[in-house]
Amino acid sequence: MIDVVMVPCFVVKDETVVVVDVLRATSTIVTALANGAREVVPVKKVEDALAKRSKNTLVCGERNAKKLEGFDLGNSPLEYKSEVVSGKTIVLTTTNGTQVIEKIEGNSIIAASFLNVSAVVEYLKEKESITIACAGTNGKFSLEDFLLAGMIVKRLERDDLVDGALVAKRYFESVKSVREEIKKHSSHARRLIFFGFEKDIDFCLREDLFGVVPVLIDGAFILREVR
Amino acid sequence: MIDVVMVPCFVVKDETVVVVDVLRATSTIVTALANGAREVVPVKKVEDALAKRSKNTLVCGERNAKKLEGFDLGNSPLEYKSEVVSGKTIVLTTTNGTQVIEKIEGNSIIAASFLNVSAVVEYLKEKESITIACAGTNGKFSLEDFLLAGMIVKRLERDDLVDGALVAKRYFESVKSVREEIKKHSSHARRLIFFGFEKDIDFCLREDLFGVVPVLIDGAFILREVR
Repeated sequence: MIDVVMVPCFVVKDETVVVVDVLRATSTIVTALANGAREVVPVKKVEDALAKRSKNTLVCGERNAKKLEGFDLGNSPLEYKSEVVSGKTIVLTTTNGTQVIEKIEGNSIIAASFLNVSAVVEYLKEKESITIACAGTNGKFSLEDFLLAGMIVKRLERDDLVDGALVAKRYFESVKSVREEIKKHSSHARRLIFFGFEKDIDFCLREDLFGVVPVLIDGAFILREVR
Repeated sequence: MIDVVMVPCFVVKDETVVVVDVLRATSTIVTALANGAREVVPVKKVEDALAKRSKNTLVCGERNAKKLEGFDLGNSPLEYKSEVVSGKTIVLTTTNGTQVIEKIEGNSIIAASFLNVSAVVEYLKEKESITIACAGTNGKFSLEDFLLAGMIVKRLERDDLVDGALVAKRYFESVKSVREEIKKHSSHARRLIFFGFEKDIDFCLREDLFGVVPVLIDGAFILREVR
């Protein structure tokens, strides 16, 4: 079975759970690891992030889309270049994406974005029971997350779709241009553009820039090479 | 602005909030009032429903789709005939629909179903800011609620759609037959059919059987004639 849940308010439990926060937490996690970060540790609170500062650690993230005082990096994937993150532990706290993670239980928990969509689909091909958990924005539905979920469901070509997965697939099929749909209609994308982050959005919407799947193990996303 | 939220886990606040639980709470509320019930009082707990028993009151509802012990009626709209409900106060507790209501705040709160969709659309035409709150099933997304939400959004012909409303509209536009979509693909519909409630589903999917809009005032849905 494949399900897609939006803004999980209960604990999401499945064999495999795919976390999606396209703008921008999971895009940042994918980029950081693809560019050589040792691990990405998602944390909920700003003070917990700051408390984890140590050698070889970068404290990163945002509130209301903006980098926080005393933080090394914000939540723009473009900041996570090899020369900055290589070999480092990234401690990441964001308004939406990293909040969702504590509500997830699964044998495998992975992070998906457009940047690694084909690698995610490849990874999911061996999995029986999958829930795609869309982070949303401030407790509300974000269409960019649901669109990526629909793309993943579509590419898996399976029939055992629960309601959310079926609707996500139908929605994806109805969209002619993913880029145009998101830039024109996503409330969150429009807000980020207003704040000056349009380059981030253009980057986050690139498909298959990285062939990696971040897997959550003992509280940290680490890299799993797929190809 | 129009928004559609699914399985609200936070308090939903808007000028106008439309509650949707197609299978079957809002269909039952609409039917009861159209057939002459004085009011429908949604309550959360079974014991609270039983405590409200008095003259001219029917205690109604379900858990796990089934009528409860000591209750007068279940949650099948077909039970709510004129000769049974006329002039009565209906106290209703259901697994999903009546649970959502306490999480809603608005100047106007109304109940929508396929049975009264045109009356609802007519009512909403004068409203500026609208949130359609889909009840879902056991905390999960139900496609029948989202499909009705999409139908309402489509018929309102407005451009100020927030993410959820846009996706619901796109989903509705992608569906050729509402009846077939729901009976074939809704997990909740399939479960109700398994429990022997297929006639309920056929009834709940009839469009515009009633030209009424139930409005929540002081904790009770009452009738507002629209045409």
